[in-house]
Amino acid sequence: MRNDNYYKMDMREMQFVLFEQFKLQDLSKHDLYEAWDRQTCEMLLDQGLKFAYEKAGPTFGMAEEEPPLFNPEYGSVTINSYFKEAYRVGVDESGWHSIMVPEEYGGEGAPSALCNAVFEFISGASPTLYMFLGGPGVIANLIIEHGTDEQIKFWTPNLISGKWNGTMVLTEPEVGTDVGAIKTKAIKQPDGSYLIKGNKIFISNGEHDVNENIIHLVLARPEGAVQGSKGLSLFMVPKMRLDADGNTSGTSNDVVCGSIEDKMGIHGSPTCTLYFGENDGCQGFILGDGTEGIGLRQMFNLLNEARIATGHMANAQAAGAYYNALAFARERIQSPEFQNLRNPEAPKVPIIKHPDIRRMLMEMKSRTEAGRALVFKLCMHVDKKTALKESDPEASEKHARQVDLLTPLVKSFLSDQAWRVCELAIQTHGGYGYLVDYPVEQYARNVKILSIYEGTNHIQALDFVGRKLPRNAGEDFRNLIGEIKTFTAENKDNPVLSADIERLDKMVDSMVEKSTVLMAWANPEKMLLIPANSNYILEMASLITCAWLILDAAVIAVKALEGVKDDHPDKNFYDGKIASAQFFCRHLLPRVNEITELLAEEDTSFININEDSFSTSW
Amino acid sequence: MRNDNYYKMDMREMQFVLFEQFKLQDLSKHDLYEAWDRQTCEMLLDQGLKFAYEKAGPTFGMAEEEPPLFNPEYGSVTINSYFKEAYRVGVDESGWHSIMVPEEYGGEGAPSALCNAVFEFISGASPTLYMFLGGPGVIANLIIEHGTDEQIKFWTPNLISGKWNGTMVLTEPEVGTDVGAIKTKAIKQPDGSYLIKGNKIFISNGEHDVNENIIHLVLARPEGAVQGSKGLSLFMVPKMRLDADGNTSGTSNDVVCGSIEDKMGIHGSPTCTLYFGENDGCQGFILGDGTEGIGLRQMFNLLNEARIATGHMANAQAAGAYYNALAFARERIQSPEFQNLRNPEAPKVPIIKHPDIRRMLMEMKSRTEAGRALVFKLCMHVDKKTALKESDPEASEKHARQVDLLTPLVKSFLSDQAWRVCELAIQTHGGYGYLVDYPVEQYARNVKILSIYEGTNHIQALDFVGRKLPRNAGEDFRNLIGEIKTFTAENKDNPVLSADIERLDKMVDSMVEKSTVLMAWANPEKMLLIPANSNYILEMASLITCAWLILDAAVIAVKALEGVKDDHPDKNFYDGKIASAQFFCRHLLPRVNEITELLAEEDTSFININEDSFSTSW
Repeated sequence: MRNDNYYKMDMREMQFVLFEQFKLQDLSKHDLYEAWDRQTCEMLLDQGLKFAYEKAGPTFGMAEEEPPLFNPEYGSVTINSYFKEAYRVGVDESGWHSIMVPEEYGGEGAPSALCNAVFEFISGASPTLYMFLGGPGVIANLIIEHGTDEQIKFWTPNLISGKWNGTMVLTEPEVGTDVGAIKTKAIKQPDGSYLIKGNKIFISNGEHDVNENIIHLVLARPEGAVQGSKGLSLFMVPKMRLDADGNTSGTSNDVVCGSIEDKMGIHGSPTCTLYFGENDGCQGFILGDGTEGIGLRQMFNLLNEARIATGHMANAQAAGAYYNALAFARERIQSPEFQNLRNPEAPKVPIIKHPDIRRMLMEMKSRTEAGRALVFKLCMHVDKKTALKESDPEASEKHARQVDLLTPLVKSFLSDQAWRVCELAIQTHGGYGYLVDYPVEQYARNVKILSIYEGTNHIQALDFVGRKLPRNAGEDFRNLIGEIKTFTAENKDNPVLSADIERLDKMVDSMVEKSTVLMAWANPEKMLLIPANSNYILEMASLITCAWLILDAAVIAVKALEGVKDDHPDKNFYDGKIASAQFFCRHLLPRVNEITELLAEEDTSFININEDSFSTSW
Repeated sequence: MRNDNYYKMDMREMQFVLFEQFKLQDLSKHDLYEAWDRQTCEMLLDQGLKFAYEKAGPTFGMAEEEPPLFNPEYGSVTINSYFKEAYRVGVDESGWHSIMVPEEYGGEGAPSALCNAVFEFISGASPTLYMFLGGPGVIANLIIEHGTDEQIKFWTPNLISGKWNGTMVLTEPEVGTDVGAIKTKAIKQPDGSYLIKGNKIFISNGEHDVNENIIHLVLARPEGAVQGSKGLSLFMVPKMRLDADGNTSGTSNDVVCGSIEDKMGIHGSPTCTLYFGENDGCQGFILGDGTEGIGLRQMFNLLNEARIATGHMANAQAAGAYYNALAFARERIQSPEFQNLRNPEAPKVPIIKHPDIRRMLMEMKSRTEAGRALVFKLCMHVDKKTALKESDPEASEKHARQVDLLTPLVKSFLSDQAWRVCELAIQTHGGYGYLVDYPVEQYARNVKILSIYEGTNHIQALDFVGRKLPRNAGEDFRNLIGEIKTFTAENKDNPVLSADIERLDKMVDSMVEKSTVLMAWANPEKMLLIPANSNYILEMASLITCAWLILDAAVIAVKALEGVKDDHPDKNFYDGKIASAQFFCRHLLPRVNEITELLAEEDTSFININEDSFSTSW
């Protein structure tokens, strides 16, 4: 049945990452996170996984079985009752929608790392439910960050209570990557509000009936503003107009959903075409003190958070696919062991006994664990940035810059590798992996959008190479490299991992050496080598960073096993952490050598040929 | 609209491969293929592409829009009328279903390379239509190969006329990869026929109403036969019983379709669960002179052909995805050129101008062209094997062995890389690639089964490493290597390609060197390294073989351009062939170095760990 729970997750792994590797519990030493000791964190984790299993999981298949229904007569979108109930439970019983909203505004103020642990559970179990639950808090936080006190008071309480939802509204039919080309207009009215007029597309959850109102954060261009992104402002545009007390009135705000898209996956989430002000009745309110032209800058943090969430959601689903493949491989009986292949009398075994199945499982395991470590490394930077903001602004700033540096890696590398992990999960299932009776094909279809939206992975790569690497005269990147080199120096004699650590150490050096070559591309003659190679560079940096973090986990595991007997309850778990690191370093990390050679080649063959050389027709 | 034609193909490319690279026209020097001069071949090609555009293409979307309907009351499957009409036109007007059946039996007797050119068009335009059209001829050919004269006369005419269809029936609920474990029983009757009894699953086109009858070729185990694959026999089992004249009678043969699968893709083709003889009324007829236990051996050629067709179909769809992405990239306007990114006034350009889009297009181009070259290299071996059978049996045998050697490469490498090509095609489309309004997401969903069915890609890899490489004391493999080394020696001073050819030459040497290491694994202690690494080995051999063939094409292009002016009508085309080879050698081939290092490592970490180390739960 489609409303079964397919989700599978290993809580031991999450505990390891949070408490053994990244020491989440130490955050409670800071005033801001005092309340979040280990016990409190673990309670929330348990509650989160329970919710994922019992409420979110069953909506995974329902997203396919009973997708949102568009009613063209009313421009309305009806969401099935399973989602609505799960949303309601998530809001009312656990407040998942507002756990990351600061306490002073009515949220839980939980550390980012903890929130994201719960978000892994929810988005791995049901990415579309996660998109509904994620909306209110994210939009509230943006208003809190940039709004006036009055705006915060007026707009956020109903978001923070989960009564309303919110969206980000950027894309237009001709405007995807090129945000600066936005055409939607904002015409200032005598009362200080604006009339919004324009057509937006690809708006996730742009219209639905889960909430009584939706606050759209719309990028638009005030009349007379300059072209490009510097002419854009950000507007709060409610679906239904608000009364003077900030409650939903019965009046429509002339935001009309024209259609919903028929997509490859994430069928539970309506992707909407929205018409703003077709009847000149769409009111928008500029965010902040009224200054125009700072809209994209205001969106900055939200966009970055969305990028992190995108990579994290990719990895969460990849992990869900992995655990499903693992469960299948333990149950499915096929063929005798390799040694006995030609003996028809030999007993058939669970396929996890077959080396090639193990190779695939271990690739999935090590990729998703490395991805998870990368996400939580970044989250810890977020939390330290926040915790140290007052007491040590300089350290806080350093953490903030690491967040910025790692964000494109999380977004791109994890969404790209999720496609590969899902491929392996399907393959592990054999013919059954191709059937909708198993969740892995749906995971594959779901994750494909994640390399595209919130800025395509190439946009991330350009951001990484063109902005993040050179920023601060390269200091942020040097700080990251410094951390890795410290790790390799300190652990070079590790009794189990020394060879793998040495391999990483060499690759870091070769990456650093290569980065000076890259600088030579910053001249008009070689300039196109930058966009031509930036995806490779991002991939290289991601592989190295992931290898470091998964080795760091393995070093912890080696220490934990020192002097421990074979019957230690965690022996298998720690062995698994070591094996993940070994696999990553031996099977995946060597791709770095390929990339460094490729970069040295400065290949322009595909840039220089005539467009017509790609084919004689089409 | 879903019944639009999405298919796109560059005929110039197919002409190049067939006539310039592989000299298909030279086959007409052999008596058997005398009729197939270049003009005749070109006429058939034109007819094939016309059929693909006009008849097959429109069924691509219909496969999704109006998939087969299962009627549980009658166990019947209704196919939509678009498919039926397209099938009928393909059979009646062009005889696509029987072009590869020898002339003496009523087919066209066309060379394999030519047939497969047409099959690329049809399967790229509509893989599920291709599956319907491919059935009759394939099954007829098997009966011709192994049947008695009487059987051929009785069973094949209605297949060769396209009136009936046929299937291969192997898989059972507990029996996928492990074919030798088949449980379906065959109970011999006094009249020499057998009663068939068993449950089969995943039978492509196992039941439908496109044809008046379906001949199932069923692997089953006669009573008293030994366990394992040596106990299996092959039976002709009609859906409807035949009368004494070999016509379809009105009597059911107790073959009942119990359900059809709900799949990730290839929605136009019903994947059936079949119950044979639930009411003890299913007659089967053993293929051949009555000898039992040779069923799997009889299926051998059919299985090999199916494997080739699988890889070819993967590449055909990948190419369809590429040309669609290319057409989109030429039309879609977004962002100014990289040099002007920060100038909001700069003109927006078609995205094919952006280096990263070009990188993706060129990866798709070079992968699919290399794949195509591999397929047609193999087809030419098939044709030379057939043509020389009488006149030069020794040469014929050599070609046959190259077919065997290359088959697992075609099947696995091309189905694996198709997933990657479709990924790039979706990415090139941006958000639009995620919509069903464009064909690329469907191509991705379609191709995923191809790495699984007809023997998973790991089974292919084991076949390659365990059987094909060592066969003939390694001579077949040495012959392949010899061809490549001859090529690199002859062309090492190529004015354009020398560096890329040298790179290939080095990699061939390192692969050969590595293959001696592999032999050391043939002992009990290291044995598991074989299945653990065979996919890597197959990938390495595929990359090298593909690089050779795409360089071979590029060498032809370099020669064709010698002394040619820039306004030569084929200048762009030949430049494109050169660029494809350069890209393949620089961006894809270096993976070979990674693999050789990995093999040297003899990593067993993931084989040796405890099963429970993969997770503490599930």
